[in-house]
Amino acid sequence: MADKIPPVQLSKSQFNLVGRSVVTLDDVSAPQISYLLRKARYISDHLPEVSQAAAGKILATLFYEPSTRTRLSFETAMLRLGGHVIGFAGAQNASVSKGESIADTLKTVANYADVVAIRHPKEGAALVASKSVDIPVINAGDGGHMHPTQTLADLATLQSRFSRITDLTIGLCGDLTFGRTVHSLIETLCRFGNVKFVLISPKELKMPQYVLDRIKASQSCTYEEVTDLTAVIGDLDALYMTRVQKERFFNEDDYLRLRDTYILDAAKLKLAKPTMAVLHPLPRVNEIATEVDSDPRAAYFEQVKNGMLMRMALMSSVLGVKLPGFAEDDTKEVRA
Amino acid sequence: MADKIPPVQLSKSQFNLVGRSVVTLDDVSAPQISYLLRKARYISDHLPEVSQAAAGKILATLFYEPSTRTRLSFETAMLRLGGHVIGFAGAQNASVSKGESIADTLKTVANYADVVAIRHPKEGAALVASKSVDIPVINAGDGGHMHPTQTLADLATLQSRFSRITDLTIGLCGDLTFGRTVHSLIETLCRFGNVKFVLISPKELKMPQYVLDRIKASQSCTYEEVTDLTAVIGDLDALYMTRVQKERFFNEDDYLRLRDTYILDAAKLKLAKPTMAVLHPLPRVNEIATEVDSDPRAAYFEQVKNGMLMRMALMSSVLGVKLPGFAEDDTKEVRA
Amino acid sequence: MADKIPPVQLSKSQFNLVGRSVVTLDDVSAPQISYLLRKARYISDHLPEVSQAAAGKILATLFYEPSTRTRLSFETAMLRLGGHVIGFAGAQNASVSKGESIADTLKTVANYADVVAIRHPKEGAALVASKSVDIPVINAGDGGHMHPTQTLADLATLQSRFSRITDLTIGLCGDLTFGRTVHSLIETLCRFGNVKFVLISPKELKMPQYVLDRIKASQSCTYEEVTDLTAVIGDLDALYMTRVQKERFFNEDDYLRLRDTYILDAAKLKLAKPTMAVLHPLPRVNEIATEVDSDPRAAYFEQVKNGMLMRMALMSSVLGVKLPGFAEDDTKEVRA
Repeated sequence: MADKIPPVQLSKSQFNLVGRSVVTLDDVSAPQISYLLRKARYISDHLPEVSQAAAGKILATLFYEPSTRTRLSFETAMLRLGGHVIGFAGAQNASVSKGESIADTLKTVANYADVVAIRHPKEGAALVASKSVDIPVINAGDGGHMHPTQTLADLATLQSRFSRITDLTIGLCGDLTFGRTVHSLIETLCRFGNVKFVLISPKELKMPQYVLDRIKASQSCTYEEVTDLTAVIGDLDALYMTRVQKERFFNEDDYLRLRDTYILDAAKLKLAKPTMAVLHPLPRVNEIATEVDSDPRAAYFEQVKNGMLMRMALMSSVLGVKLPGFAEDDTKEVRA
Repeated sequence: MADKIPPVQLSKSQFNLVGRSVVTLDDVSAPQISYLLRKARYISDHLPEVSQAAAGKILATLFYEPSTRTRLSFETAMLRLGGHVIGFAGAQNASVSKGESIADTLKTVANYADVVAIRHPKEGAALVASKSVDIPVINAGDGGHMHPTQTLADLATLQSRFSRITDLTIGLCGDLTFGRTVHSLIETLCRFGNVKFVLISPKELKMPQYVLDRIKASQSCTYEEVTDLTAVIGDLDALYMTRVQKERFFNEDDYLRLRDTYILDAAKLKLAKPTMAVLHPLPRVNEIATEVDSDPRAAYFEQVKNGMLMRMALMSSVLGVKLPGFAEDDTKEVRA
Repeated sequence: MADKIPPVQLSKSQFNLVGRSVVTLDDVSAPQISYLLRKARYISDHLPEVSQAAAGKILATLFYEPSTRTRLSFETAMLRLGGHVIGFAGAQNASVSKGESIADTLKTVANYADVVAIRHPKEGAALVASKSVDIPVINAGDGGHMHPTQTLADLATLQSRFSRITDLTIGLCGDLTFGRTVHSLIETLCRFGNVKFVLISPKELKMPQYVLDRIKASQSCTYEEVTDLTAVIGDLDALYMTRVQKERFFNEDDYLRLRDTYILDAAKLKLAKPTMAVLHPLPRVNEIATEVDSDPRAAYFEQVKNGMLMRMALMSSVLGVKLPGFAEDDTKEVRA
């Protein structure tokens, strides 16, 4: 099947991300996202060819709170491009945080590194960081911990499974109120259009109105809200699972009752299409039974790999390094 | 003097460790251990030649509890093979340990790395890790903190000093009850045979029966149990010292009385053969006086280097990378 | 303007720092400092050429207390020379510090690394470390946290701004009693001579007598002590700002009153020469208003870069690696 790529006509210059910081996906145009998806797929097929592309470049991972999964993904991405990594994680950063502003830390690190990935407990920290320096800063999570490269990982997984990120019925299941990952995914998919969202949650954890409004405002996306996963799982092309956190509930009983309803297991999976893809931002606790891992529909560990590939695509782009053999402006793939 | 190598006839395929996890030394055959010893010696003599052998490969060091010595040894080994390193150590791993299973962490990391070294406070963690993924997992200590590459370092030090790991009289001194390092060394040497073990400890810290049974079950190894180091030191080819930990004793007096008996110093060393090798797994506290360090018989810092070389040999083997100039199947060296 | 280099006739051998540890700047001769300044300038202009100079070499950063700024500078310096980095920072070092002496840790690490940068809370730790091993050890701060590469960064910034480190009027402002960075800078500049120091501090935080004596003992350096920054700022070629720490004062009122007097802002800067350079060892708290950052006289973030360049110069020198194209013995630049 031929790949379907979002229907936008692009000039080469539109792809240009050199020197750009990415705090939210609003910093990246839809054509640029398509470009990154194509680039990640190229990288996946040509790891040896790109293994020296960023030789001599240095990534600084400034993790003011630990997030090992995300940090290792960024670091691996840089190493697999042939670059170097410096940085700190959590407890190590004592001297940095002791009274020094984020701006000063960034201005210091800009003397060491060519690109920064920052994670910080305070919302807005990544924006402040990006405004402080001329080198590109990538948000690896601040405040609500939504971050653009997580959404890029999600998109790459859909692209990898379906060769498209449009014309899909996508279920989002679990905690839709606080799960900012799903909010970001919906907002981004709405920029491309032609997605039907099936929003599956207990009434206590429904999708916020502003996200629903965003879907309504799109030309071609629609949604429905349901409470029963088993009733709709058969309709879905993809099912995005999220954690249902105990602390969201008033009492233990509610938590226990609801939690099980939204656990994906082999029994529920029997009702799904054979080609459905199961996504999850990880780490999971128990919302996906481990018996699902060996089902070919399980895509959540692939998602980890796709996250790394998208970080390679993004970092090589903002650094302005060329990937040998990659056609920057592949018009064949960019068509209506 | 010609090297004596354990008398086993091997086919090339027996050496094959590609893709293999090493949780205990039971995962490695005696011929494979001989092969690793030969490989480590080759590496030691050809560091520049092997310095790009693992280019593009990534080691993940997953240290759920800190062990700087072991972590740095693995990391140096990978870097000296030309590969990259990612990972976490102790306090950094908050996000990994927060509710995520070891299996899930490994399945995630398998998307980043080509080989894993894991250290974990819980016995069995390394086995669980190795069962979770297809990439090779090397146990860097779990539970009792015995780990196979420590024993490989010990064997390499004997090989380096005596050009053999058989036909030796080896004293093991100190805490023989809880010192799992010496248990592992004895069990491995018994697979090769022709070692006389002299077990030197206070009666409170004698060798467990199952280890004695293992020696008895071997065809050609023997042991004797003694309490006085000075009485036997003159007979030994090698003396393996261990820490005598205060918390093993009921009272301070017993500890102080016994501790000094098992401290190796220049005076005791005068009674030893001029070629005796002193080993110690490190870190030492005070069981070897620092005056011994400058004695040519002190082999414990060499042991550190040998540990790194054996980790280079083991990682290059499980990764299946070729070492330029190394004869994989050197039949000349494999003879009765 | 032609560079002025300290007036010493040198033989090539005097430059030789191979294998040398640097615990204080007393370990480096004045000609060697000039050599390092020239080397750092060369590196700055030839980063691509030197990017593989230390290929295969390993730096160990042993940070017994965190100092992210300094650690990242050393690590970047090594990476930009093409070498590798291993190490620990703060909380990670539990197993190293648990009962093991610094000497033993160094003897272990000497099997892994080719050069060590050590930071330790105890004064004298770096000296002990350097005496324990044959590989070069660089002090990255012990006890009072003065360290030689900070002073080298300061000198390189003066050299970069004025093409000389002599024939300057240099103001040092703030806490001159406890600020060991300025003590070290003064002592080193006195070895080169022809500097007029203007010591600007509240009477509670005056320069210690032994530093004044050092200036007096020099042939060509002088000083004056003042309390008012604005009165002298117009005379200065360079102004070295330091933190005024709250805990140095008996009461909050004194602190608040004095603090503001020694804050550099745009208003005070209007009184200064257009070519004056503002230095600060960083991190700053509020002793330099952020509005100063965009003034071309602000040199404190340049200082960060110069620190990295001097660490590249120093590490390449003690490692004995050649920098392609660099003239080790440039007699043209070494003249009276």
